[in-house]
Amino acid sequence: MSQRIIPEELLGQAAVTGVTITPVAFKDPPLLNAVGVHEPFALRAVVELHTDAGVTGLGETYGDAGHLQRLQLAAEAVVGVDVFKINVLRQRVAAALVRDTVQGGHGMSGMVTGSSTADRVLSPFDVAALDVQGRLLGRPVSDLLGGAVRDAVPFSGYLFYKWAGHPEGQEDSWGAALDPEGVVRQAARMVEEYGFTALKLKAGVFEPDEEIAAIKALRDRFPDLPLRIDPNAAWSVETSVRVGRELDGVLEYLEDPTPGIAGMAEVRRNVSMPLATNMCVVSFADVAPAVAAGAVDVVLSDHHFWGGLRRSQGLASITETFGMGLSMHSNSHLGISLAAMVHLAAATPNLDYACDTHWPWKDEEEDVVLPGALRFVDGSVPVPTAPGLGVELDRDGLEKLHRQYLECGIRSRNDTGYMQRIDPDYALASPRW
Amino acid sequence: MSQRIIPEELLGQAAVTGVTITPVAFKDPPLLNAVGVHEPFALRAVVELHTDAGVTGLGETYGDAGHLQRLQLAAEAVVGVDVFKINVLRQRVAAALVRDTVQGGHGMSGMVTGSSTADRVLSPFDVAALDVQGRLLGRPVSDLLGGAVRDAVPFSGYLFYKWAGHPEGQEDSWGAALDPEGVVRQAARMVEEYGFTALKLKAGVFEPDEEIAAIKALRDRFPDLPLRIDPNAAWSVETSVRVGRELDGVLEYLEDPTPGIAGMAEVRRNVSMPLATNMCVVSFADVAPAVAAGAVDVVLSDHHFWGGLRRSQGLASITETFGMGLSMHSNSHLGISLAAMVHLAAATPNLDYACDTHWPWKDEEEDVVLPGALRFVDGSVPVPTAPGLGVELDRDGLEKLHRQYLECGIRSRNDTGYMQRIDPDYALASPRW
Repeated sequence: MSQRIIPEELLGQAAVTGVTITPVAFKDPPLLNAVGVHEPFALRAVVELHTDAGVTGLGETYGDAGHLQRLQLAAEAVVGVDVFKINVLRQRVAAALVRDTVQGGHGMSGMVTGSSTADRVLSPFDVAALDVQGRLLGRPVSDLLGGAVRDAVPFSGYLFYKWAGHPEGQEDSWGAALDPEGVVRQAARMVEEYGFTALKLKAGVFEPDEEIAAIKALRDRFPDLPLRIDPNAAWSVETSVRVGRELDGVLEYLEDPTPGIAGMAEVRRNVSMPLATNMCVVSFADVAPAVAAGAVDVVLSDHHFWGGLRRSQGLASITETFGMGLSMHSNSHLGISLAAMVHLAAATPNLDYACDTHWPWKDEEEDVVLPGALRFVDGSVPVPTAPGLGVELDRDGLEKLHRQYLECGIRSRNDTGYMQRIDPDYALASPRW
Repeated sequence: MSQRIIPEELLGQAAVTGVTITPVAFKDPPLLNAVGVHEPFALRAVVELHTDAGVTGLGETYGDAGHLQRLQLAAEAVVGVDVFKINVLRQRVAAALVRDTVQGGHGMSGMVTGSSTADRVLSPFDVAALDVQGRLLGRPVSDLLGGAVRDAVPFSGYLFYKWAGHPEGQEDSWGAALDPEGVVRQAARMVEEYGFTALKLKAGVFEPDEEIAAIKALRDRFPDLPLRIDPNAAWSVETSVRVGRELDGVLEYLEDPTPGIAGMAEVRRNVSMPLATNMCVVSFADVAPAVAAGAVDVVLSDHHFWGGLRRSQGLASITETFGMGLSMHSNSHLGISLAAMVHLAAATPNLDYACDTHWPWKDEEEDVVLPGALRFVDGSVPVPTAPGLGVELDRDGLEKLHRQYLECGIRSRNDTGYMQRIDPDYALASPRW
């Protein structure tokens, strides 16, 4: 009988001794959405949680200036906490934010503004603490979340309308996608390179009829792939219902067609496909009103604004209990977040939709983790089995992207402002159609 | 910087190699309730989960015959599963129960019959798997649940109407409690010996006015202690409302006054104190209907029927999200269950009511764990900090209680049948008043 009990001298606290927060910027193509266009660089922050156990854990979160300030408040508050006391981390973070007078910093360009500040700030600390735990224990993070129920996590191919390049830059390798043909061409390459088994179109950019045509073109080209469309609440209830009926039998789910719980509920009563959201249910406070209104069928979880991996599993218990589906939202992200998303999805039995990821839009040469730990096979990412998140910090990559942050001049994500610099007549509207 | 990383040779699977299920019986006083009276022995089953890591984990559950048969089905199904894959244990247990043709065996004498069979059977495997994890990792189970937020878990003093002794046995040291004076005398001893800071009266035994008088006598004697009454759905809606109004300002919460979600909701609209339940919300399937009806304010969780410790934390996420309180239910139990309850309560921030326990009713000489790990200080049980549950199996105690099981002849809890052997005219009724 083998002996795998940990020797006495290995036991004890693994207390946080300090936190390093490094803002980074990485190249981002001109992806169009309902509030503007992605700027040339996307911001993130890398959180390193140092412990007296000699192990450092990694977390990744938004890099907006206001969020960075709050992370700093939280970082000071968690020193001394044992990384196994995630409940205490949460209490400390919440208490630290009582002093929060920061404006903005939700990191999502106006599209998800109602999320819980405390949960948004807690998230990278929760992830980093679980990374430390796993490294100390020799267990992948998925094991600390109840264990993986799948060896690989499927993702959807995330299609965007886009320009061929940023106005002041060169054309990127993806080229333009501004009509159904462009979207199908983009999808074909993405499916070819990654093997995605589901496709999602970020919409709310053009007249609804053009976007309906794009979905129908995708259906023709990929008759067997589940399709989703996400106009980020760009449509009125009336338009949403019209689009929903036009795409009856075509969509796996219709994501955030219209703003707010009441509007979503009205659309839901009038279309046949499931309604999904990462805009009207973005915090625990939104759940009861959404359930009462019958607003949604599928919640797109996101550990970055649902308080980390453990609290996201709480959300999973809720959706399972209330008969809702569970999928996963994504913002532009790096490898630490992809690893965290994969561990969470692997260990959440009812997270059974292909998850969203912006991964294909990231320059392969840019990341903060060493290559090799994360890869796509047939549209899925094999769940890392190494201790912790299973990814290692790439110091050179981190330094490069931090320098890029310092030099790029962007301090808060602002898709609308960037669009307005290009097109001074551009104005926000929700719903727009 | 200390090095506490686990050496490579300690890593790897901790797969279940076998399961030992031992039914036990321990002495139980003649505690009266709405369906009869406790028999001279209470049944439990001790589950030992053996692993190829050389470590065995402990779980405790009901000992009724039907439940034992289901445990055996589950035991065969979990062999080979890594104890860190609790999600897989759950899948295996659920699949094994497809072959379940067993009748009865819910272990709660007709009072909680709607709980999920799969969750009831899963529970001791979940607890034992977490015990193995903790032992392997050198961490208390509370750390595997997000970490303790309290050093000790408060319990309520669980008062029962009772006879002085079983008809065929001797008077026990507690003596009779059949009127307000007897209840107050019992409470005084219990508070004196354990330091409880809350009191609960198991009711539904006598006319409501007598039980109201008992609560008022307790209030007079213990002006500062929160009081609860639990008639196990013995009252009609009308009676419940009357009692609730009579005890306005006296009760911390009113527990299961009347049967069913609709009745509870009607009572709730007509009384001022919070309504608690461990009878109309006993599985995840009950939650949405109860929320929709506005039936309850406080859910009394119980890891024995909510699928173990991890799923009980899912319930905690739900109650927190829907603005409900969370307390903890108890059946007659031994030390393994007390340890599990303490770890769960310690690591669940919103489990902030004093928990129920039958502990004072257990003969001090009888248990299946070695003495010393669990004790009451000022009404609370300090959270064990040793690896796993922090309790060790007492082989002699287990053997003694198993022999007692074999000899006592009781194979399923039957408070009603026992009462009817003593009083042939006794008949079930819910509501009775």
